Amino acid sequence: MHLKRDFKRVVRVGSQKIGEGHFGVIAGPCSVESEAQILDIARRIKHSGARFLRGGAFKPRTSPDDFQGLGMSGLEMLIKAKKATGLPIVTELMSERYLDFFVRHVDMIQIGARNMQNYELLKAVGKTRVPVLLKRGMAARVEEFLMAAEYILAGGNDQVILCERGIRTFETITRNTLDLSAVLAIKQMSRLPVVVDPSHATGHAWMVAPLSKAAMAVGADGLMIEVHNDPENALCDGKQSITPDAFEALMAELSISKMTETA
Amino acid sequence: MHLKRDFKRVVRVGSQKIGEGHFGVIAGPCSVESEAQILDIARRIKHSGARFLRGGAFKPRTSPDDFQGLGMSGLEMLIKAKKATGLPIVTELMSERYLDFFVRHVDMIQIGARNMQNYELLKAVGKTRVPVLLKRGMAARVEEFLMAAEYILAGGNDQVILCERGIRTFETITRNTLDLSAVLAIKQMSRLPVVVDPSHATGHAWMVAPLSKAAMAVGADGLMIEVHNDPENALCDGKQSITPDAFEALMAELSISKMTETA
Amino acid sequence: MHLKRDFKRVVRVGSQKIGEGHFGVIAGPCSVESEAQILDIARRIKHSGARFLRGGAFKPRTSPDDFQGLGMSGLEMLIKAKKATGLPIVTELMSERYLDFFVRHVDMIQIGARNMQNYELLKAVGKTRVPVLLKRGMAARVEEFLMAAEYILAGGNDQVILCERGIRTFETITRNTLDLSAVLAIKQMSRLPVVVDPSHATGHAWMVAPLSKAAMAVGADGLMIEVHNDPENALCDGKQSITPDAFEALMAELSISKMTETA
Amino acid sequence: MHLKRDFKRVVRVGSQKIGEGHFGVIAGPCSVESEAQILDIARRIKHSGARFLRGGAFKPRTSPDDFQGLGMSGLEMLIKAKKATGLPIVTELMSERYLDFFVRHVDMIQIGARNMQNYELLKAVGKTRVPVLLKRGMAARVEEFLMAAEYILAGGNDQVILCERGIRTFETITRNTLDLSAVLAIKQMSRLPVVVDPSHATGHAWMVAPLSKAAMAVGADGLMIEVHNDPENALCDGKQSITPDAFEALMAELSISKMTETA
Repeated sequence: MHLKRDFKRVVRVGSQKIGEGHFGVIAGPCSVESEAQILDIARRIKHSGARFLRGGAFKPRTSPDDFQGLGMSGLEMLIKAKKATGLPIVTELMSERYLDFFVRHVDMIQIGARNMQNYELLKAVGKTRVPVLLKRGMAARVEEFLMAAEYILAGGNDQVILCERGIRTFETITRNTLDLSAVLAIKQMSRLPVVVDPSHATGHAWMVAPLSKAAMAVGADGLMIEVHNDPENALCDGKQSITPDAFEALMAELSISKMTETA
Repeated sequence: MHLKRDFKRVVRVGSQKIGEGHFGVIAGPCSVESEAQILDIARRIKHSGARFLRGGAFKPRTSPDDFQGLGMSGLEMLIKAKKATGLPIVTELMSERYLDFFVRHVDMIQIGARNMQNYELLKAVGKTRVPVLLKRGMAARVEEFLMAAEYILAGGNDQVILCERGIRTFETITRNTLDLSAVLAIKQMSRLPVVVDPSHATGHAWMVAPLSKAAMAVGADGLMIEVHNDPENALCDGKQSITPDAFEALMAELSISKMTETA
Repeated sequence: MHLKRDFKRVVRVGSQKIGEGHFGVIAGPCSVESEAQILDIARRIKHSGARFLRGGAFKPRTSPDDFQGLGMSGLEMLIKAKKATGLPIVTELMSERYLDFFVRHVDMIQIGARNMQNYELLKAVGKTRVPVLLKRGMAARVEEFLMAAEYILAGGNDQVILCERGIRTFETITRNTLDLSAVLAIKQMSRLPVVVDPSHATGHAWMVAPLSKAAMAVGADGLMIEVHNDPENALCDGKQSITPDAFEALMAELSISKMTETA
Repeated sequence: MHLKRDFKRVVRVGSQKIGEGHFGVIAGPCSVESEAQILDIARRIKHSGARFLRGGAFKPRTSPDDFQGLGMSGLEMLIKAKKATGLPIVTELMSERYLDFFVRHVDMIQIGARNMQNYELLKAVGKTRVPVLLKRGMAARVEEFLMAAEYILAGGNDQVILCERGIRTFETITRNTLDLSAVLAIKQMSRLPVVVDPSHATGHAWMVAPLSKAAMAVGADGLMIEVHNDPENALCDGKQSITPDAFEALMAELSISKMTETA
């Protein structure tokens, strides 16, 4: 199976590139919780070498009784952090309703694993010209993952980055099973940039660093890492978040150079 | 885990009921293909004892190059078949954009497996008062399935029917693996009505009849069966569709009584 | 895929038959615990209509620190129960070391799920003329299951019964996921008799009765059910064992006729 | 869960060590096919830095009609290759019947994935003092994998190396899904040495090198790699075997130092 539409092998966001040798790290908290929180994290991850700031404002939670994110006010905080640090921002879109706002203010639109086959949403982002980070569905085969990307490309949006974030298996010791061979399969079948999310894949902060190294070793084009300044009190996914200090140590281990521009 | 919101143990659509001993069969083609096709199938399944007519107008297909359904004109044909036969109609909603139309014309809104965790769509149908048929996601645990139902119930829509349609496993001889123990688990954890879809679960027309009997034996509240008048030339899922004759034979085997009202 | 070797569509053990319309129920405790226990259970299940007595003497337990079965003395107790009731016995063989003894005293040799691809053991029982009950491996596709049967048939032993006992999936609410479509697939690809084990498949005693009915409805040739006279104090798998009273009620519901011969 | 028995963190075989910083590479063909073949491969992998020679003599094949290995004569060839090169040998034991011979001539006994829960075989090798390479079962959770190791340790054999070789999932683009997070989980729960087999995990020769690097990056203690001098004509698993040249290039990339002793 090969992709039928044109696409960019290198996705560009401002001065940042991901793909074809440009390794990019996206970092930030699962959820934007306050202005102070996102600003603090943004500054620290930028200092350590992250190229993109992630943070959820609209959160797809399994139960309606779980914290659902700060919504539009969370987005506003994320935008402030972008202005303060110069880091382009990545955040999840869950409904076409907010698409116009995302197009104006968000640098890369994330489509989450649960919406990987929400074809109406894929078509909607396909009509924009904003780069899209498409996460693999929990039960998606590589071929289906690529066909979901085709839905975006078919609209004329040729900037898509795929994100391997683990698949659902019988193993319960990790939240999902990280499938690094999928990175290889995707790259052989297409030349779409692929990043790896070891945080969601495993659910364990202590597994993030070694799997980040493994992802780089296998040839991924980047990483997506959850960083929180107070993991124990995080409103979501604290157990899989590393601290800014741990993130700094990891970036050093990966020999990731810091951004040249400063805020 | 138990449901926190109120819900109906019996879902009513016009004079039809599903749940608490009322066994209901939903039948029809994967996709509405023409007025003649849907009308013919509707008449024949009604004659055999089906209580609801299903037919897809908006189809969530893995590839953007597959047939995507007839869209609004497919819906119009379905509505004509409803008028001609009196059968209430069930069809899939993939985007909030069409919700108003569905609320006015559709008797039961189907949320497909790929959108089981499309929470914005769940919230949207939760605000309506139209019964919802929620299909289990391919990688959804029973608990997550029930929590997806909670999203609908939380909006005040207390008429939800769950549909077990197979889960994704390593077995490749069937399209999915039908999980009849899930019917039991759901019923123990809630009293939501549950129907079983042996067509999508297996992908094989010849497996539909015996698994329908098994679903009834295990205590399901109904069935959802793909019936096509010309399976070999169906625009989608022909291999798993049974003919109207086979459907009639199956209804007789299941001793399903025919509708009393006539069109 | 089709079987290359000859096999019997009906397996005969003494006056009992399983296959081609002969529905046979195998019942008994997970593990033989004492002479009184196995004798009591044997008498009661026979009274209710069971055709075979099962009971483990050698138990394949996940941890070496779990109860491993009574071994040879358990076998002796099982043989006494056979003499007392006339019920043919089925028990698991885990090592070739005991094969001679099994050939002399056991009526049907069980190969457990964990040994489905222990090819040396399959070849060994293939050289005997004792009927074999082969359980499906937790990760075995139907085709692999049939090829495991080929290993037995290839030795000239043409009496093999397959047992569907659930496969391992991501679902955790049941111990395994019972795959009733596999019964259909096996029957289409071969005519080997197939029985269903709802006890191990689900791990829940309360699910056994409805899934037994479903197995019969789908066309299985028999059942394998764990029955214990004191489930709460069973040395293994108590949670999935039903009581002799529940077993009697189930046999009545399934309209299973009692054995004509008496001990 | 923690291991209850004593075990060695470093497994020693002659002058070779695996574990606690000693990275060891096991290489060789899926199956010993001829004296010339195994000798040629042994010399070439030793030259490139492999520490152990693997080669199957008894092969657990899915179908009885597939090539089953050369058996005892394959073992003799493997022993000759050991004498010629000084490389310790690793080969699979499928039956207790050959245990005495293995104890005398084999340096590390491999227990294959299909026999990971063949407890009688585990107990048998547990009574020896030959190091054991235990491969993860296709459907084994990490905890069950460790408990299988306990069966060996319980006999007093404290030299066990675990091998992650992929688990069975719904993904079909690879033979199995390599689970590198399992390496981390095993190391946190025990300090048993763990090696990774990217050949069986993926089934694709071209995936072996990048996943070998990933395995090293994640902290594995070694690799198990299929090398064949004529992959296209290999009697088994040719598609996943790399050539001696590719193996040499990989060892150089991994900066694996060559053995100091010569034959």
